[in-house]
Amino acid sequence: MQAPKNAPSRSATPSSSDFIPGIVIHAGAGSLPRDIDPALAEDFRASLRSALKLGQQALAEGQAALDIVERVVRHLEEDPHFNAGRGSVYTANKDHELDASIMCGQTLACGAVAGVKTVKHPISLARKVMQDTRHVLLAGPGAEAFADLAGVERVANSYFDTPSRLKAYQKAKARYEKRATEQSPAADDEKKGTVGAAVLDQQGRLAAGTSTGGLTYKKHGRVGDSPIVGAGTYADKRSCALSCTGTGEEYIRHAIAHEVSAQMRIGGKSLKEAADHAIHKVLKAGDGGLVAIDARGNIAMPFNTQGMFRGAANLRGRFEIGIWGGLDDAPPMGGITVQG
Amino acid sequence: MQAPKNAPSRSATPSSSDFIPGIVIHAGAGSLPRDIDPALAEDFRASLRSALKLGQQALAEGQAALDIVERVVRHLEEDPHFNAGRGSVYTANKDHELDASIMCGQTLACGAVAGVKTVKHPISLARKVMQDTRHVLLAGPGAEAFADLAGVERVANSYFDTPSRLKAYQKAKARYEKRATEQSPAADDEKKGTVGAAVLDQQGRLAAGTSTGGLTYKKHGRVGDSPIVGAGTYADKRSCALSCTGTGEEYIRHAIAHEVSAQMRIGGKSLKEAADHAIHKVLKAGDGGLVAIDARGNIAMPFNTQGMFRGAANLRGRFEIGIWGGLDDAPPMGGITVQG
Repeated sequence: MQAPKNAPSRSATPSSSDFIPGIVIHAGAGSLPRDIDPALAEDFRASLRSALKLGQQALAEGQAALDIVERVVRHLEEDPHFNAGRGSVYTANKDHELDASIMCGQTLACGAVAGVKTVKHPISLARKVMQDTRHVLLAGPGAEAFADLAGVERVANSYFDTPSRLKAYQKAKARYEKRATEQSPAADDEKKGTVGAAVLDQQGRLAAGTSTGGLTYKKHGRVGDSPIVGAGTYADKRSCALSCTGTGEEYIRHAIAHEVSAQMRIGGKSLKEAADHAIHKVLKAGDGGLVAIDARGNIAMPFNTQGMFRGAANLRGRFEIGIWGGLDDAPPMGGITVQG
Repeated sequence: MQAPKNAPSRSATPSSSDFIPGIVIHAGAGSLPRDIDPALAEDFRASLRSALKLGQQALAEGQAALDIVERVVRHLEEDPHFNAGRGSVYTANKDHELDASIMCGQTLACGAVAGVKTVKHPISLARKVMQDTRHVLLAGPGAEAFADLAGVERVANSYFDTPSRLKAYQKAKARYEKRATEQSPAADDEKKGTVGAAVLDQQGRLAAGTSTGGLTYKKHGRVGDSPIVGAGTYADKRSCALSCTGTGEEYIRHAIAHEVSAQMRIGGKSLKEAADHAIHKVLKAGDGGLVAIDARGNIAMPFNTQGMFRGAANLRGRFEIGIWGGLDDAPPMGGITVQG
């Protein structure tokens, strides 16, 4: 199923003139005021460019969709700017619990982990679940025991401690302590934060993956949509590959990732129609966004929040990132831009 | 959203002549040899009749779909014959970990719990998650802490100990110890076992719920489809309510519960067509089955295993249960039988 790494692009089948290999990424959606510190905004842009460049290059080298998804998500997990891996938020217990999922659009093989506390790269553990077990979803200490068996790197939970997330935790804690009677509330700015990627490789293979640190100050073992195949992640060669970010409960309730795929596969909608329908008709304003790529290389990045950290690139020169409504970086190489 | 309990049936709207209120239940699918001890088979039948009768009566009393689903699943959870609640299988750690989910077809409200060890009725905890929190899925010790807050009864894990499941555990343990190198294998007869119900009430409301004790000798925090809305359970007034049972990973990968709903809602398939498609075209022989009811009261109970413990009843005299290919009890009251 996987192409050898660094296969030359001329080995691509079907002919790449039938489709445009591409990658689309996100790093969370939410209420992002346009007046944030410009230096911080530029940091976010630099992080997005870096991840997208890595993906575009891997794509150009002929790497397999699953490898590119894993590689780019690992890169985003290492970036403390985003709520996944290193930059994961704090739970109510002042520790970190991470979730991730990955899926192959060619075979529907998929793997996911939920509530892991000591796994440096949850996306890689999810891939091991997919490839080395008969299971799809492993949770909690059992998933960590499996990490040891699978040779996936573990770290102390404190690896995920960062000053900016600690500040968010303290802010959330103060707020919750004022409202002790209410169960598991979440302010809007605590809800969103996830990273993900969807890829169409040179051989026409689709894959997608998602990784998150969950909700700030989350309690009660809450599991969101990121580790749920069909909710936060889906890939199916008959339709598209996609990764979602937003209020997880709404994505589970409506099985958003599977719904976009089903609207294309069953309903004959285009990627843009199916993705827009999910984000603007099925979900409500403020719920989140998604990034998706179909088997032709069309890309969609709709969101119904103030902003979504995102980027799209392909092998025809498209390379663009965005935070708010418009795109912040236009294609730098004057290449064509596909639908999206 | 809920009707008052024991509301008289004449209060039903829309007119019940437009549809036939009904209930369909299952208690697991799998390789059930036809030559099992006839006394045991009769025990199973008696259990199914008892649960179905309870549901039919609640339906006749005008109870709300969600209440009926919860009540019937609680009854099945109390029955040691089935792998849910009391009769839950043993994990590799020789304890019990239970999962459940419930969904309202009118509002898409849903709730689920995974990996709870001390909750007598996981289906009731799932309903509390749905009604009392902003979340959909709570897992592990956090879900149990929430049970205390929500006033849901907890029991010692040993409450779920039963001699027949202990025997299955010992058999599985012996088998695994012979094959220590293989990760998380599962013999066919260890895979299946779940209970569930789907209801269309007198007011035309749909609801569904599922509860399970998971896999015998399960390891590594494996989570199956039963607590995953869209995989093991779904309900949507535009299509149907359904509960699945079988090899959980296949149900997650194909988002089976949501797929049946989508094939009706988007593809215009009938309940029978959509349910048969999922079980006989999307899934492979041996994967499992599902029970479903649509907004008109049509019922479907397809399975691709040797047998499925199941039953269907409505308010026009249908009352039938089955274990293998045919139905074991015909309608006892000479009533009409709807599609299914």
